[in-house]
Amino acid sequence: MFDATTENAPGRTILFLNGPNLNLLGVREPDKYGSTTLREVEETVAKTLSAHGLTARFVQSNHEGVLVDAIHAARTECGAIVINPAAFTHTSVALRDAIAAAALPTIELHITNVHKREEFRHHSYISAVADAVIVGAGTHGYILAALHVAHLLVG
Amino acid sequence: MFDATTENAPGRTILFLNGPNLNLLGVREPDKYGSTTLREVEETVAKTLSAHGLTARFVQSNHEGVLVDAIHAARTECGAIVINPAAFTHTSVALRDAIAAAALPTIELHITNVHKREEFRHHSYISAVADAVIVGAGTHGYILAALHVAHLLVG
Amino acid sequence: MFDATTENAPGRTILFLNGPNLNLLGVREPDKYGSTTLREVEETVAKTLSAHGLTARFVQSNHEGVLVDAIHAARTECGAIVINPAAFTHTSVALRDAIAAAALPTIELHITNVHKREEFRHHSYISAVADAVIVGAGTHGYILAALHVAHLLVG
Amino acid sequence: MFDATTENAPGRTILFLNGPNLNLLGVREPDKYGSTTLREVEETVAKTLSAHGLTARFVQSNHEGVLVDAIHAARTECGAIVINPAAFTHTSVALRDAIAAAALPTIELHITNVHKREEFRHHSYISAVADAVIVGAGTHGYILAALHVAHLLVG
Amino acid sequence: MFDATTENAPGRTILFLNGPNLNLLGVREPDKYGSTTLREVEETVAKTLSAHGLTARFVQSNHEGVLVDAIHAARTECGAIVINPAAFTHTSVALRDAIAAAALPTIELHITNVHKREEFRHHSYISAVADAVIVGAGTHGYILAALHVAHLLVG
Amino acid sequence: MFDATTENAPGRTILFLNGPNLNLLGVREPDKYGSTTLREVEETVAKTLSAHGLTARFVQSNHEGVLVDAIHAARTECGAIVINPAAFTHTSVALRDAIAAAALPTIELHITNVHKREEFRHHSYISAVADAVIVGAGTHGYILAALHVAHLLVG
Amino acid sequence: MFDATTENAPGRTILFLNGPNLNLLGVREPDKYGSTTLREVEETVAKTLSAHGLTARFVQSNHEGVLVDAIHAARTECGAIVINPAAFTHTSVALRDAIAAAALPTIELHITNVHKREEFRHHSYISAVADAVIVGAGTHGYILAALHVAHLLVG
Amino acid sequence: MFDATTENAPGRTILFLNGPNLNLLGVREPDKYGSTTLREVEETVAKTLSAHGLTARFVQSNHEGVLVDAIHAARTECGAIVINPAAFTHTSVALRDAIAAAALPTIELHITNVHKREEFRHHSYISAVADAVIVGAGTHGYILAALHVAHLLVG
Amino acid sequence: MFDATTENAPGRTILFLNGPNLNLLGVREPDKYGSTTLREVEETVAKTLSAHGLTARFVQSNHEGVLVDAIHAARTECGAIVINPAAFTHTSVALRDAIAAAALPTIELHITNVHKREEFRHHSYISAVADAVIVGAGTHGYILAALHVAHLLVG
Amino acid sequence: MFDATTENAPGRTILFLNGPNLNLLGVREPDKYGSTTLREVEETVAKTLSAHGLTARFVQSNHEGVLVDAIHAARTECGAIVINPAAFTHTSVALRDAIAAAALPTIELHITNVHKREEFRHHSYISAVADAVIVGAGTHGYILAALHVAHLLVG
Amino acid sequence: MFDATTENAPGRTILFLNGPNLNLLGVREPDKYGSTTLREVEETVAKTLSAHGLTARFVQSNHEGVLVDAIHAARTECGAIVINPAAFTHTSVALRDAIAAAALPTIELHITNVHKREEFRHHSYISAVADAVIVGAGTHGYILAALHVAHLLVG
Amino acid sequence: MFDATTENAPGRTILFLNGPNLNLLGVREPDKYGSTTLREVEETVAKTLSAHGLTARFVQSNHEGVLVDAIHAARTECGAIVINPAAFTHTSVALRDAIAAAALPTIELHITNVHKREEFRHHSYISAVADAVIVGAGTHGYILAALHVAHLLVG
Repeated sequence: MFDATTENAPGRTILFLNGPNLNLLGVREPDKYGSTTLREVEETVAKTLSAHGLTARFVQSNHEGVLVDAIHAARTECGAIVINPAAFTHTSVALRDAIAAAALPTIELHITNVHKREEFRHHSYISAVADAVIVGAGTHGYILAALHVAHLLVG
Repeated sequence: MFDATTENAPGRTILFLNGPNLNLLGVREPDKYGSTTLREVEETVAKTLSAHGLTARFVQSNHEGVLVDAIHAARTECGAIVINPAAFTHTSVALRDAIAAAALPTIELHITNVHKREEFRHHSYISAVADAVIVGAGTHGYILAALHVAHLLVG
Repeated sequence: MFDATTENAPGRTILFLNGPNLNLLGVREPDKYGSTTLREVEETVAKTLSAHGLTARFVQSNHEGVLVDAIHAARTECGAIVINPAAFTHTSVALRDAIAAAALPTIELHITNVHKREEFRHHSYISAVADAVIVGAGTHGYILAALHVAHLLVG
Repeated sequence: MFDATTENAPGRTILFLNGPNLNLLGVREPDKYGSTTLREVEETVAKTLSAHGLTARFVQSNHEGVLVDAIHAARTECGAIVINPAAFTHTSVALRDAIAAAALPTIELHITNVHKREEFRHHSYISAVADAVIVGAGTHGYILAALHVAHLLVG
Repeated sequence: MFDATTENAPGRTILFLNGPNLNLLGVREPDKYGSTTLREVEETVAKTLSAHGLTARFVQSNHEGVLVDAIHAARTECGAIVINPAAFTHTSVALRDAIAAAALPTIELHITNVHKREEFRHHSYISAVADAVIVGAGTHGYILAALHVAHLLVG
Repeated sequence: MFDATTENAPGRTILFLNGPNLNLLGVREPDKYGSTTLREVEETVAKTLSAHGLTARFVQSNHEGVLVDAIHAARTECGAIVINPAAFTHTSVALRDAIAAAALPTIELHITNVHKREEFRHHSYISAVADAVIVGAGTHGYILAALHVAHLLVG
Repeated sequence: MFDATTENAPGRTILFLNGPNLNLLGVREPDKYGSTTLREVEETVAKTLSAHGLTARFVQSNHEGVLVDAIHAARTECGAIVINPAAFTHTSVALRDAIAAAALPTIELHITNVHKREEFRHHSYISAVADAVIVGAGTHGYILAALHVAHLLVG
Repeated sequence: MFDATTENAPGRTILFLNGPNLNLLGVREPDKYGSTTLREVEETVAKTLSAHGLTARFVQSNHEGVLVDAIHAARTECGAIVINPAAFTHTSVALRDAIAAAALPTIELHITNVHKREEFRHHSYISAVADAVIVGAGTHGYILAALHVAHLLVG
Repeated sequence: MFDATTENAPGRTILFLNGPNLNLLGVREPDKYGSTTLREVEETVAKTLSAHGLTARFVQSNHEGVLVDAIHAARTECGAIVINPAAFTHTSVALRDAIAAAALPTIELHITNVHKREEFRHHSYISAVADAVIVGAGTHGYILAALHVAHLLVG
Repeated sequence: MFDATTENAPGRTILFLNGPNLNLLGVREPDKYGSTTLREVEETVAKTLSAHGLTARFVQSNHEGVLVDAIHAARTECGAIVINPAAFTHTSVALRDAIAAAALPTIELHITNVHKREEFRHHSYISAVADAVIVGAGTHGYILAALHVAHLLVG
Repeated sequence: MFDATTENAPGRTILFLNGPNLNLLGVREPDKYGSTTLREVEETVAKTLSAHGLTARFVQSNHEGVLVDAIHAARTECGAIVINPAAFTHTSVALRDAIAAAALPTIELHITNVHKREEFRHHSYISAVADAVIVGAGTHGYILAALHVAHLLVG
Repeated sequence: MFDATTENAPGRTILFLNGPNLNLLGVREPDKYGSTTLREVEETVAKTLSAHGLTARFVQSNHEGVLVDAIHAARTECGAIVINPAAFTHTSVALRDAIAAAALPTIELHITNVHKREEFRHHSYISAVADAVIVGAGTHGYILAALHVAHLLVG
């Protein structure tokens, strides 16, 4: 489930969590989500973090429970969370509660500008328990999130 | 997870997806859902499709993630989807996004007439990404769906 | 108003009711409604029913009152109703009450997938008094409806 | 369309208007609407009015336009209106405007207690332009309406 | 609290219940409520009932609890209830529950046409537990209510 | 039903459609609608159009179905539609669909300023399928509509 | 129930009405309501009014009916009303109707700023029948109300 | 109003408050509320409390003001409140404010499962100021409440 | 997944189901949820049940599907269900349907008083299919639930 | 701020007011707003008015306050107002109040058909204080407005 | 922009801020707003404040930005704010934020009783950041506000 | 109004627009907005942009019109817009329309996480016309925005 990464210090590992259907990133609807695959995004993120002395842990799942479990693990093993909850953004109170319980710096991220899409995508259960939200910056948003985490943890 | 079926040509295999609690079909509340079991329904569907040179793949799960995974697999392995999302009809954006990403002919199906039931059952996240919706035809609705898929794929 | 049909047994005659603007079927907006005319649809339906020993009575009107009158007549003269209420779906309590009073097996049908259209088209006054609803199957939906009626009446 | 009645003085003729499906009164759903037919109700009403020197004009139609036309005629030919708008209660602004234009004493009447039925039956377009509303008194409500008209016109 | 009346048979006594501010009837805002006092209304009601072998019990109170108590008493001592709940119409679930518990024929009555007044007066907690509702007939509505009770109890 | 007019070229004939109760124009509530009759309005409109080489076809009906039929006829026989849907503005999806199907330049018109009236008159089913909307200009609005049609068709 | 006061001229006596739980003023939640007791407030008010030749009548009750009765009495015995309806602000149509019936200059008053509290406290049934409303001025609001009454009655 | 009980220590006396119509418990609608009378319930509660060294004070009233007064008295005389507000649950801000002012451990209780009943019964003004809420446990709920109070006060 | 328990008689085993994030009980946010761990709660529950001749089966999962499966198993293996659905309370129709299908006595339980928290936590999909609901009693609520189950099953 | 115009008689000068972003007319989004510039529109308007002995004053501003000031000036210096409030239509109560205070004949105008655009553009604060509203007639709407003003002022 | 006033001590100067259209006070709609001009009001206010050793600064503007700027200036130069935001009450978050940032005692004031006017005037963005709100006291409300400020600052 | 900057190439100048009250940044409520002043933020932004060969133009205003004017100027003079609309986020359609007309890459930015604040701050008129939205990253969000602009323009 987890990418193999060298995780020595909890506070220096950042959990990057991707929700349902993001395994298809770069494959489905490239005009909407671009043609960069999730794997490619993760590689760029890892480099960006590395430049600040941080490492990444990557989890993607279509199962809400797997994401909740990953957040629970991060409580003691990570220093921050970057989450693209995808469809669960609008439906998962369980993720919200898990994030609140983890009590870590958390950045919510959406590749597309959800405010230009269907009405039901305008509401997020996650935003109120996240610290920052980055929307519509494409896959570059993951880099912005990584930089912001570095700013918060490393300064 | 999958019924053993001979699947030679992707476009000729139809995914029949059944959501939570439908494993109890024919067992729970027979006055509402009838006494035909899901297995019996699947057998009749298989025969109907067979008459049109099509085969069926059957997936039933109480786990949303399993259903999403099955749709992802169908993207390249099936020619159409017939889905009875059951309770997930009203709560799952993840299924909606998966169906939209699959970009296959899709028929949504409900055994009972949901419009006669609780208010919250009147809204479906799936309908807007499905092509056709069949409601209230009992388990016979699966046959109608199979016939419509045959009409769309075989003509 | 009525197509000439040989109606010997009430329970064997099926009323196919089409609401406002459906007289333009196949003529207006063919990209949305297809290019099959209502007359052609009716001929195919008649053949399908005939194969099951059933006959059809066809009524189309832009006048709500005419449709209500036709349902009243069907109470004692027909065995089932297939209705495409078109625009009246969303505005006519009179049709709803007439269908409830007729107490016949009733199938509501929409050629397009109304769930992909304007918000006000998502609510139907008819669905709660119909037995089954078929949406978005194009004019093939009339055949599915005919087959379902046959299933219900003939078995 | 109209019952034959001796109408000598406009102010002494009362229009009793019955909306869609009320032609089935006493026939459909007798447990809800009773087994008295509309004709029987009209006879009793005629007698009640006669005792106060008034005559009745009866119109029933499933066509909204016919009811509007009848109200227009009543403007100069009748002294009051008793209307059971049935299904049009909840959908017809045209009837509302016609009643407002007629500017006659108007009583709205419902045989059943609409407040015990579906939510959409709780709103009436007519009530705000009627003078009085009688609900749930069964067909006896027509007699109460007749008596109230007599009270208003004759004293 | 109660008018002195000869109550020999429970089923023959009708409780007429008037809610808050109705003690001012005929005094306050005569252009809206008329100039007949509550006492005068009660006298006419008593005569009307008497003609049908019925007697009346009159209770008016500005205290919700007093009205609830009166309904409780009527459960075993009266044959029907006519209630003008006035302001409590829109706010009192306690009255609603008391009426439901009494399980007597109940008529709700409003002197003015509440549907022409503020939006909040369009909703009644009472109507769904009443049998009939008479609105906007002025104080003559009490007579209509009395006649309807007579119709129900005496025939 | 139609005024006698010389209609030689479809594109040069303009359908002026008036909905329910507008036959009473100039008669009912003159303080709200003025004292000009519909006939007088039509004569002025005809003159205005004539000055631009256009002719008018006038239809008024209290029957929704008649208005729908008239629009259907206009599809092939007229060059534009000016419609005052009156009460049907707020309730008729059938008219909306008919106008959309006609695919002609269409102007919606209201004599009074509906935005100063009841809340339910603020919503129009027609506006979204009309090209222009003219509200509150009194019967002079018909002239403005005629001029705008001339501007669109003749330039 | 009433404080003993010398009431010689109706128009010179001002009714100060305090609703439920205000008997605990100065006792409960002093951080929210202050530590001045209702008795102390009343003494200051009496002095303020006295300086303008006016007297006060004080009524506090947890019983809605008692407050309604007090307003009824004030109709003929007082010149103005100052009311802090407390919890009844949001629930009592009976008080609203009583105030409207009294037809006296009326000032509504709240000690705390209700707009900073729960959503349901933002709506007042009383405000629309009051002349002025004073909110959030603490117990000093009673003095402001007294001064405004003096301004209105004495000038 | 109060049952005679030996109340020596405030913190050891528990106020059991029952709202409108609960005096009919065991009498009205036994299929919904059971056939145990309020008196019988109170006796069982007293025994349960007694086993934990606690005493009960019982108040039932159909008058909101009486209930408010009882809570005020409990502020200094009782150690906890168990309240079944019945109909006042949904309408009484006064009770809510009184409970908040009392600042005692408070348990809200409903005999039936209000979530299975009318929509308006799903909202409680009391819940947000209560500590615990017990719903649908029948009259056994009073015992559960007593046990929970004992748990809170005695441990 | 299941705690090892001796389950001899289906009707004597009680399923205690705990939803997402409750594995962190006693660990996360102890000021809100207390410092008792889920394991400790389960031990106390087991003792309480044992005193009434009942045994417990404990399931906690962050996966909705696992909870649904557990309810399905309980249909034939348990005598009652006590469920704390946590975040799924507000989002899971699948759990609701599973509980309805199980048709066992069911108690819904929340440790905190959800009515004091965010608006979206005030609605429960579960309550309408549960028999009783216990809210805000802390982890002691599990004991109350166990006692109520014992009351229902053992008496 | 104002175009230089010869203004001799107040009643003969018409204020044409254009709100925010209309200075870009003909420049931005020409497919939506056309390619005619505001200056060109003003010249045509001036000619149209001139033919009826009227003159125009033109004000365009992106500052709400400037528009309010212009309306204040018009109170004594102009005979009518034609206003295209653009974005302020939906947000400015200040403009609404200014227009109401000016008490001049006022025509609201929108170049595009706002009813085909976003939901929030369907509500106008201005319409209820305007006399007439012209929507969707393109820049030709300014001519229609000018003609209607001439009709109102000159006849 | 500012009235010339002797401002020696910040805490002793009170900002009186009047929003759009209030420059017309005493001129427009005198039946609604009275015939006292803003200048006259300001003179009376100045005298009232002077009696308590306070001075006034008066700003009126139709430009939201000017009002925001004035509040910013007041942050360090004034001791309290009295604001009649007029139309901006219902639309200006900028004013709300400015007042919150100023962190001064603030009184919101409306000359008329906004609760008797249009629905949209019942909501104020300002009230939740003001300390007190005075509504419907006419221009005398300014004096009451001045007295309350004096009470707060001087005692 | 503008900071002096060397602007040689339009596409290389980025407009940084700050709305009402942001001139107080670092001064007001530092616990919410931090203690960095707007000037300091601008200096850091300028340096960040400079590293990518871009220059900044800074505009802050409490006047909506000034911000609209600045966007109009940017249409031809700048390559992208970064806007913190502050209070205007929730109320300004004029800014939305200006941004849409400018047709430049646009980033909306909020210093605090608006989703944790009042409900009305959850809706933004700007988001649907912006490309990306950055929320809750503190003043570091300006740097993220600058980096994203550089990514978009320079790559």
